[in-house]
Amino acid sequence: MATTEDIVSAIDADQKDALARLFELLAIPSVSAVPAHVPDCEKAADWLVAQLVDLGFEASKQPTAGKPMVVGRVSAKRREAPHVLFYGHYDVQPVDPLSLWTSPPFEPRLAAGQNGEQIVARGACDDKGQLMTFLEACRAYKKFGGPPCHVTVLIEGEEEIGSPSLPGFLAQNGKTLKADVALVCDTAMWDPRTPAITTSLRGLVGAEVILHGANRDLHSGVYGGAEVNPIHALARILGALHDDRGAVAVPGFYDDVEELPQEVAEQWNALAFDAPGFLGAVGLTTPAGERDRTPLEQLWSRPTCEVNGVVGGYIGEGFKTVIPATASAKVSFRLVPRQDPERVSQAFRAFVTARLPPDVRAEFISHSASPAISLPINNEALRRARRALEVEWGRPAALMGAGGSIPIVGAFKRELKMDSLLVGFALDDDRMHSPNEKYERTSFHKGARSWARILAALAA
Amino acid sequence: MATTEDIVSAIDADQKDALARLFELLAIPSVSAVPAHVPDCEKAADWLVAQLVDLGFEASKQPTAGKPMVVGRVSAKRREAPHVLFYGHYDVQPVDPLSLWTSPPFEPRLAAGQNGEQIVARGACDDKGQLMTFLEACRAYKKFGGPPCHVTVLIEGEEEIGSPSLPGFLAQNGKTLKADVALVCDTAMWDPRTPAITTSLRGLVGAEVILHGANRDLHSGVYGGAEVNPIHALARILGALHDDRGAVAVPGFYDDVEELPQEVAEQWNALAFDAPGFLGAVGLTTPAGERDRTPLEQLWSRPTCEVNGVVGGYIGEGFKTVIPATASAKVSFRLVPRQDPERVSQAFRAFVTARLPPDVRAEFISHSASPAISLPINNEALRRARRALEVEWGRPAALMGAGGSIPIVGAFKRELKMDSLLVGFALDDDRMHSPNEKYERTSFHKGARSWARILAALAA
Repeated sequence: MATTEDIVSAIDADQKDALARLFELLAIPSVSAVPAHVPDCEKAADWLVAQLVDLGFEASKQPTAGKPMVVGRVSAKRREAPHVLFYGHYDVQPVDPLSLWTSPPFEPRLAAGQNGEQIVARGACDDKGQLMTFLEACRAYKKFGGPPCHVTVLIEGEEEIGSPSLPGFLAQNGKTLKADVALVCDTAMWDPRTPAITTSLRGLVGAEVILHGANRDLHSGVYGGAEVNPIHALARILGALHDDRGAVAVPGFYDDVEELPQEVAEQWNALAFDAPGFLGAVGLTTPAGERDRTPLEQLWSRPTCEVNGVVGGYIGEGFKTVIPATASAKVSFRLVPRQDPERVSQAFRAFVTARLPPDVRAEFISHSASPAISLPINNEALRRARRALEVEWGRPAALMGAGGSIPIVGAFKRELKMDSLLVGFALDDDRMHSPNEKYERTSFHKGARSWARILAALAA
Repeated sequence: MATTEDIVSAIDADQKDALARLFELLAIPSVSAVPAHVPDCEKAADWLVAQLVDLGFEASKQPTAGKPMVVGRVSAKRREAPHVLFYGHYDVQPVDPLSLWTSPPFEPRLAAGQNGEQIVARGACDDKGQLMTFLEACRAYKKFGGPPCHVTVLIEGEEEIGSPSLPGFLAQNGKTLKADVALVCDTAMWDPRTPAITTSLRGLVGAEVILHGANRDLHSGVYGGAEVNPIHALARILGALHDDRGAVAVPGFYDDVEELPQEVAEQWNALAFDAPGFLGAVGLTTPAGERDRTPLEQLWSRPTCEVNGVVGGYIGEGFKTVIPATASAKVSFRLVPRQDPERVSQAFRAFVTARLPPDVRAEFISHSASPAISLPINNEALRRARRALEVEWGRPAALMGAGGSIPIVGAFKRELKMDSLLVGFALDDDRMHSPNEKYERTSFHKGARSWARILAALAA
């Protein structure tokens, strides 16, 4: 019978082809937020089904009200082996502003970087590169008769738009998807040499507000001074979302927020986070959030409010003296445990409505609402995975919080009563959601090796 | 010799062809703000040169650093006749949002309206329809041997972007352009049955500010809470531009602003402006400007600040949890006499700069800067024109202020020491600068008749 070292050696030997496979997937512009890319999402799903079949899975594309799910299953030889459900997503973020990409976002390429070669493309990291680390581990196992665990793979196409079809799909297919533990590869390492397991995630409320003033755009020469300007009203509202100390000023927002447990706070302090380095990497010097919180608290355990987009009036070249009929903003709230997404959403609407001047009407659109979650630190699967990561990387895996939201983890817990093990190989400078997104070739290679070791450890 | 009644009858008889000529000009998408339309601006200029030649003018297209000027000249038979300089502009505003047009903006058409037929197209009113009223009057005169005044025509192609090439062109060609009075057809009537002459115009400062934060767009999940968001900084700045009473809050902004002379205030009060009707026509109920000013003061004699455009972050369909690297706004100030455009521009920059949080840098772009002007009410040409308008329309012409800016009027005064007579036939509901711009067919027809009578009155 093959040893784990045989498996990781097989991964080493197959690097060139593994990269070619990833490049094929990266070349498909599966942007879930843009309707024109619906056919590309289908194409990415089809490509993954073919991959899974090639890896010995029974696999299929399963329809939803939105983008299809890719589902595959393969059994371990040992019947009593544990059952894992691996989750990833094939959809990617929009690419704009396209002008800031140094090469076309869907023409993957290798570039030289500080830590060796980098894979550059939209989705190189989030989440195509990450999910392929797991499939490459499965490919190596196939050469030796298949994986040591029963494996179900679930790859969705709507993660970047808040996973609207996922809860319904889990509710309908819970019995076949339920496993001993879920494996999710959509998170980061602590640093380029230190692996990590993420044990807490913030929730997300995505809200859009459109302010309506006059029934049409007006000439500011003719009307300026007497007619209401929705941009002014919107600016006043958005400008009031935070107080002078950086805290969110929406009434009731902090009502259910708890202080960080002493034990966790101490562990985070021990991580000796390099705040100046973290900020300096993106050209900044000063933490901009709540004044009386450490940067790690701001990023991992405190709720936030960010305006992610704003638009109104003439935004083309040159100048146009218009008073627009509408102005709008996309606003997101990152939530911590015990905050209720629906309550936060309502508080935001009340905050806006209370600040509307005469003749201005607010229209609201909800984009997503998921609560925060935290994972049990002393879970057996987590301890085994942590040891496996230490063997691969030569140093203990950090236990981290994460500022982002992965709705699937809450849905797994809620719909399938299943914990998730969050292991990923992204780095802070991977430019996820930004132009020139990249993934370290080391992450891709050692990520696959890590999964090979984790599967072996879970089955041991 | 032909009487003025012969001339206006000739205009009546030629209405069908006059409309066809205007439609030809309206079909040319001469948008000065958009570089892709440079060839269309050239085309509109060529078309006007051909028109003027057909009307017996010596005419040519004259180059500038920007769009070309169209210049034409024709002499009256009577050598001692007065010399008028007619000014118009062939460039038009951008058409966005295109989706709100009920028919393509550069496919002119007739539509039924409250006051008879309307001509619908971008530029139908501003300024192609208006300038063609004068050319159609010249066409009628040509049938009887030419106009009674020496006429120079100057038609520019950059009015909608602040006339950047105009001062230099006037300085270089002052001797050949200088006339006894300038005639400008780019203003409005008091109401659909009452003609007007505009005797005061606000100035304009157009400023763009771009706030820069991090050196790239960031994922709000990873960075949100600790990294500065330029949209937040911009919202706070724009939200502070006005105080709670609707006044502009930029320090020093009102320093040079004078109260309206009693005589003018009384005349304006006598106009019995229908503020509820003016606001109601665009779906509004409440004057939004300075609380302690009448609506006509807000529109004609008080300086203002309007945000004409704002953009930052993700503005496409759906949602993207990004913290953008930049956010920007286009802001215009309407000025009244004695306010210095440069001083206002500097005060705005200081206002922004004083409100920048750490790590946010402001970049400024100047788009235009012209002072306000007021015209002498007892000018002889004005009195003659006013009588001519009364004959045509059957009621006295109102003497109005105007909220908009027409940079040429200041430039004529400054460069050529020449007063301007502002007579136009636009209506408040012409949707200038908005989708579905229109011009009343009555304005087009009686506008031409009005110019025929004004030329006769000036020559008498």
